Amino acid sequence: MSGFAQDQWYVAAYTQEVGTELLARTVCGEPIVFYRKSTGEVIGLFDRCAHRRYPLSEGHLSDDQLVCGYHGFTYDGTGVCTYVPGQKRVPRTARVISYPVAELDSFVWVWIGDPANADVTTIPRAPWMDHENWTTVSGMEPLDARYGLLIDNLLDLSHETYLHGGYIGTPEVAETPTTTEVDEAASVVYVSRRMTDVECPSFYARSTGITGRIDRWQDIEYHAPCLYLLHSRIAPTGVAPGADGDDSGAAHAEIVYAVTPSTETTTMDFWGVARDFARDDVSVSEFLFSNNREVVMQDVVALNLLEKVIATEPDGYQELSINIDTGGLAGRRMLQRLTEGVAPIPVPTA
Amino acid sequence: MSGFAQDQWYVAAYTQEVGTELLARTVCGEPIVFYRKSTGEVIGLFDRCAHRRYPLSEGHLSDDQLVCGYHGFTYDGTGVCTYVPGQKRVPRTARVISYPVAELDSFVWVWIGDPANADVTTIPRAPWMDHENWTTVSGMEPLDARYGLLIDNLLDLSHETYLHGGYIGTPEVAETPTTTEVDEAASVVYVSRRMTDVECPSFYARSTGITGRIDRWQDIEYHAPCLYLLHSRIAPTGVAPGADGDDSGAAHAEIVYAVTPSTETTTMDFWGVARDFARDDVSVSEFLFSNNREVVMQDVVALNLLEKVIATEPDGYQELSINIDTGGLAGRRMLQRLTEGVAPIPVPTA
Amino acid sequence: MSGFAQDQWYVAAYTQEVGTELLARTVCGEPIVFYRKSTGEVIGLFDRCAHRRYPLSEGHLSDDQLVCGYHGFTYDGTGVCTYVPGQKRVPRTARVISYPVAELDSFVWVWIGDPANADVTTIPRAPWMDHENWTTVSGMEPLDARYGLLIDNLLDLSHETYLHGGYIGTPEVAETPTTTEVDEAASVVYVSRRMTDVECPSFYARSTGITGRIDRWQDIEYHAPCLYLLHSRIAPTGVAPGADGDDSGAAHAEIVYAVTPSTETTTMDFWGVARDFARDDVSVSEFLFSNNREVVMQDVVALNLLEKVIATEPDGYQELSINIDTGGLAGRRMLQRLTEGVAPIPVPTA
Repeated sequence: MSGFAQDQWYVAAYTQEVGTELLARTVCGEPIVFYRKSTGEVIGLFDRCAHRRYPLSEGHLSDDQLVCGYHGFTYDGTGVCTYVPGQKRVPRTARVISYPVAELDSFVWVWIGDPANADVTTIPRAPWMDHENWTTVSGMEPLDARYGLLIDNLLDLSHETYLHGGYIGTPEVAETPTTTEVDEAASVVYVSRRMTDVECPSFYARSTGITGRIDRWQDIEYHAPCLYLLHSRIAPTGVAPGADGDDSGAAHAEIVYAVTPSTETTTMDFWGVARDFARDDVSVSEFLFSNNREVVMQDVVALNLLEKVIATEPDGYQELSINIDTGGLAGRRMLQRLTEGVAPIPVPTA
Repeated sequence: MSGFAQDQWYVAAYTQEVGTELLARTVCGEPIVFYRKSTGEVIGLFDRCAHRRYPLSEGHLSDDQLVCGYHGFTYDGTGVCTYVPGQKRVPRTARVISYPVAELDSFVWVWIGDPANADVTTIPRAPWMDHENWTTVSGMEPLDARYGLLIDNLLDLSHETYLHGGYIGTPEVAETPTTTEVDEAASVVYVSRRMTDVECPSFYARSTGITGRIDRWQDIEYHAPCLYLLHSRIAPTGVAPGADGDDSGAAHAEIVYAVTPSTETTTMDFWGVARDFARDDVSVSEFLFSNNREVVMQDVVALNLLEKVIATEPDGYQELSINIDTGGLAGRRMLQRLTEGVAPIPVPTA
Repeated sequence: MSGFAQDQWYVAAYTQEVGTELLARTVCGEPIVFYRKSTGEVIGLFDRCAHRRYPLSEGHLSDDQLVCGYHGFTYDGTGVCTYVPGQKRVPRTARVISYPVAELDSFVWVWIGDPANADVTTIPRAPWMDHENWTTVSGMEPLDARYGLLIDNLLDLSHETYLHGGYIGTPEVAETPTTTEVDEAASVVYVSRRMTDVECPSFYARSTGITGRIDRWQDIEYHAPCLYLLHSRIAPTGVAPGADGDDSGAAHAEIVYAVTPSTETTTMDFWGVARDFARDDVSVSEFLFSNNREVVMQDVVALNLLEKVIATEPDGYQELSINIDTGGLAGRRMLQRLTEGVAPIPVPTA
């Protein structure tokens, strides 16, 4: 049993990354090789040959079957071995794990845990990622840091002011208190920050065309362990959603992170920004892609450094938590519960 | 006591590598500095000064004696210290180990174990390496993998079909069953694969001039722990050795590997190919050198990767063995017996 | 409690290195960020934010206060937090250690231990480093080796003959016996080597203008744990100090090393050469700088190698000590006493 939450769906790749070339990814410490059969079906197999542990991702596909590059052991999409060298009989035990996989919202999800418990209807959704009414930019950056540091980071956006000043951070983000709610049954943490009559950061000023003071909402949903959604609303100050729910006076960005632990100290940081404004403006797409990637890389650099710091610290180093950490601490407790399988702990006030 | 077989001869270098320049090599975890005295004698000393552990290989020779590069402690070829700085009297305990060494078949062999037990007549032979009737190409590649992985590799040539396809591998190598015999008293494993009426791989087609179908014999002798011999016979299909032992209708290659553990996870891979055909054709020598080095590097890359895989696996990971592994498993058991000094275990059928 | 001598002053930087840019240095395993306030005062704070351990040296200064680059926690020069994001009240426990510091003899000294015990009058002195009657060249080289190896090195100058031959080493350095005295109360080791009628090494021949045979004195004072002084006197053979103490017939070099442990296996090697000859000759300054830096780098290369050797050795490897090691062994015992806080052990004869 690893130190990661089991019986959970994790994002392993974007759908377009998986084709007839073998793709090796490590998810929750498990090496997995992905490929797409000629039928279009995505296959995820344990990336170690049953024979001598050679990575299957070093082999090649032949008729939708995976041939090990060392001694030729051959596996079908269910992980059953169909050929071994030097003999006709294939041993019954010659097989590798085939992981449950699902393609949803532009992501390839993989189930880590008991396959019998895999239920695709429980995958948390991020429909904006490939919805016809939204325009999306996205990417993935590998992180040399434990995934919990990125969850901490995303649940406490006060860091935008300091780490991302000039990009998405303004003084008001750090100044504005947040509210936090936790749904233990659904394993979701909600953190909300509503800013009124504030400066518009360049990230939005250049992309939305809104030039004056704004009302800015940051409504976070963290679906533990893997999916983080930031519902971002930017509107000229005073423009509120209509009583009928119409909010066409505002610009919306759905910022999606899939945070997938790779090893104990490495992480895959899938990120996307979907928008409902300037949808056909390629220059806005290019700006949002490069600008958000910059922001992501600022986090990557900072968290890689923090990982190095923590790795040299004695166990049980001290932290000081304040009000803004309420969401992050709630996220940590939820991850701890999912990882250990214990009952939820009430969230104390910070 | 290290995890390596003790009281054994290992290959440390080619004879031409040892001269009046100091050569540092690590054999079975023991750092050794080699040099050749003006008399031609090869000396192997423990590569740490008795004073402050500085590597003697960083020093220099003076009148066939080795002067430490840090404080000038000076040693003769027997490892006895003959000079120390700042005083006339040299302490009796100022000495380092001098290893038994022997030059044979182009190799410098070194004895790892109790010097009292060293007997040069027990060194396994590879006479083709510097015999006047054979033409040889050779090299050495360092491996970032435990030496057992290379022994496994060499005792199961079915991997030629997959890892060395287009070089020395053809489908028949993987398809053809092998026979295995073990001589526990002599610490030798024999694995034989006799292929009849098969495709001639490019490695041999280009070097022997044989163009049609061939009979191909691969007769392995593994003299544990260090020396591996592959007697390779290639003949036009149907051409057999004469009753008088004459086999001039066939081409022969004697493929020699000396596999020397350096540290627990690094290895020196000495390789040679001796032939009795096209002996004066320099282009064949060049082809066999570059082609066999390619094959060796394919193994190096694969085994370095496998070492990384194993290093991250929990202890006691599972393997699945089949018939073709009989030779490799016999080699592993023999190494285990030599390392642990225990009685041999019968070889089960796979 | 670290493995370093506590309640001691260590050199962390040269004074000119500390300005309004943040300077991160690790001293005895403690990460410290240094900066200079607009008043000129040097500040040294623990380089980890109390909030989430982010290095404060990644932040910036604002009005002489240090702002964390992650979430904006802000500290004054005493280490007290004056601002946190998202709330008005700053928790009482939001503070980091502020280290006692002192500027003396061109160095920034920092106190490692209980601040209540810090007494700047106990700092050992190296007045030549910034004295108007002396001309000085200096530098700092980081070492990937434990600091004890550099103390060993400096207290046994017989290595000059071998490691620094052609620079400062001549055969007589290794040949000449030394005398050693230990002042346990003051934690000082004295090692003296007086050479008469010897060769003048190029280091001094080129810088002093003395061309013939010389008398050469090397009088070492090691103020454990950090400061090493080598009083070097070079004079034409037979020229002695006058009865009145006048020694103007000789050239003097005061060679200063501050040896600061950074981590268990890394060290800061601050070095300086002050001279009372050819004081205004820039070419002599340039020569002494580059030549002494070469010598320092020879030590760095050798000790980095020795560290690697030691790191792979089993605990309790053996050394052989001789007369020239008396000073080095005395230094080791003194460091052990300072580190462990135990009573001094008598110095045995080697």
